[in-house]
Amino acid sequence: MNPTVQAITATTGSAQRRAIAKAITLLESTRADHRAQADELLTALLPHTGRSLRLGISGVPGVGKSTFIETLGVYLIERGHRVAVLAIDPSSTVSGGSILGDKTRMERLSSLEQAYIRPSPSSGTLGGVAEKTREAMLVCEAAGYDVVLVETVGVGQSETAVSGMTDMFVLLQLPNAGDDLQAIKKGVMELADLVVINKADIEPAAAIRAQAQIKSALRLLGQQGNPEHMRHDAQQWHPDVIRISGLKGEGLDEFWSCVTRFRDLQTANGKLAARRQQQARAWMGALIDSGLKAAFHQHPAVRASLAAVTEQVTRGLLPPSTAARQLLAAAGFAATAM
Amino acid sequence: MNPTVQAITATTGSAQRRAIAKAITLLESTRADHRAQADELLTALLPHTGRSLRLGISGVPGVGKSTFIETLGVYLIERGHRVAVLAIDPSSTVSGGSILGDKTRMERLSSLEQAYIRPSPSSGTLGGVAEKTREAMLVCEAAGYDVVLVETVGVGQSETAVSGMTDMFVLLQLPNAGDDLQAIKKGVMELADLVVINKADIEPAAAIRAQAQIKSALRLLGQQGNPEHMRHDAQQWHPDVIRISGLKGEGLDEFWSCVTRFRDLQTANGKLAARRQQQARAWMGALIDSGLKAAFHQHPAVRASLAAVTEQVTRGLLPPSTAARQLLAAAGFAATAM
Repeated sequence: MNPTVQAITATTGSAQRRAIAKAITLLESTRADHRAQADELLTALLPHTGRSLRLGISGVPGVGKSTFIETLGVYLIERGHRVAVLAIDPSSTVSGGSILGDKTRMERLSSLEQAYIRPSPSSGTLGGVAEKTREAMLVCEAAGYDVVLVETVGVGQSETAVSGMTDMFVLLQLPNAGDDLQAIKKGVMELADLVVINKADIEPAAAIRAQAQIKSALRLLGQQGNPEHMRHDAQQWHPDVIRISGLKGEGLDEFWSCVTRFRDLQTANGKLAARRQQQARAWMGALIDSGLKAAFHQHPAVRASLAAVTEQVTRGLLPPSTAARQLLAAAGFAATAM
Repeated sequence: MNPTVQAITATTGSAQRRAIAKAITLLESTRADHRAQADELLTALLPHTGRSLRLGISGVPGVGKSTFIETLGVYLIERGHRVAVLAIDPSSTVSGGSILGDKTRMERLSSLEQAYIRPSPSSGTLGGVAEKTREAMLVCEAAGYDVVLVETVGVGQSETAVSGMTDMFVLLQLPNAGDDLQAIKKGVMELADLVVINKADIEPAAAIRAQAQIKSALRLLGQQGNPEHMRHDAQQWHPDVIRISGLKGEGLDEFWSCVTRFRDLQTANGKLAARRQQQARAWMGALIDSGLKAAFHQHPAVRASLAAVTEQVTRGLLPPSTAARQLLAAAGFAATAM
């Protein structure tokens, strides 16, 4: 057996932590030889994965995600779980801020032996960041973390990425008027398996109002939804809306009971397995798409002419469809009926 | 000069109509030699295009789009305009229904010499249908139609396609509670340059309530919007919300005055030109993407192994990232850092 696989799956404590960190560093490398090793490592780890509860946590900046995750993590560890915290933050490349931020904010959780906290990889694009996070999740699962929390910063597309790699997507909301409208607008509400109104201790009356509003919005969205887009069988699960205080730790029992009820139901009716299979296929498809685009843009003929052709299209001298066909042909892609 | 270009740009009446129909049939053909001719024709027509007002009309089925478009078309022709009506309906391939439907519903408009009505092409995918409609729009412009109405059926993604090829996107709404929430959820409200509450004659009180609700929702969406996604400079244009009756023809003056005000403002501040340039580039990019996917899926190595590899990914035997890299390499796409 590969010594890294051995160390990840069959050791504990600091030896295991070092092996996890080493594996994730390898996964995050962009060197071709590292990538080949990473592919081999992942394939070897795969039989040891899949046994955690994968929980996506989303919400706008300021909603209190880090405090909630820290409180939840400590709560779960006190009940015998091992908790890994991963993040998707495509902006971390630019700001570098979230890495320091995570460590500072989750001081209590990160001091616990049963917790593993990894900041967002800073490999640039959302697709790249999401891929590294998915792979880090598999490493944590192989190491026996039975709850993986994947946090997203509220910048739009990363919610879809997190929802696409977790078993349950939790949306944190503020008890503010309009916060729900924003989530509906961005399509995030539709992804939610559970909506949690945080900071309910600070504005209890507003939190109760928000709870009623969001319940009613979810009902309307559910009734009018395009059946294809509906994630929830109406007979089986209506997204719950609960109030908590991440800071005071109030509502965690109710939260965790919602989560385990959902997980048990989805396991029993086969939807958990189907969701994970669908996610794996979609992940492969997304990587193929981005690989195709990269190959196209790196082709010498495209590099030589793309700017000039784009300029002609912009100036209205060349129809976009003709330009696309010319570029594809120049890059050696067989002409096909489009 | 190409005789078809000559007939489209410099004749009128039935000779022109035949030339337009011939050109559009050529554009809709999937034969490679036809496509080469179509590219040549489009390039030749391009200097004659761009002089129409391109108006997208969207709304859920039952909102009264066809009646509104017919009434508007007749109204505009009475005021000296020439009006082309195009449609995007990806479902028409399956049902075949919209072609008969359009002709039956727009009997009055289609009898007028100054109107040209073309049903949705039935070439399968949304991307294909949208491309054909965009190209047909250019043909109509070259033929001197100065208002092009592009209708979409309310099936989700076609709204984005129509918004991406028009100068102004009009959303028709019913005076029903919840219709606005649905539009917000689907991201269609965000695309709207103008919201029109139709059938205001039938439910006048509900229409007034809906108008106030939608105005308030647009204000909230505008305030909270991600600035990157905002189409409207707050200083310049707030999407208007007006009430009309397409059936009785009430409110058309106000509608048309909103449209011309918007067009004049966007022309003066340069946003119309910028929008069209951005649309042309985005169109080219979308065609390149779909061409790349088609080339990948048609590659013999991919055809031979995609099903088996997908099965391994689904069964958890192969990591999706490894599978994607293997398939890309087998299809001859250079391995790149992803």
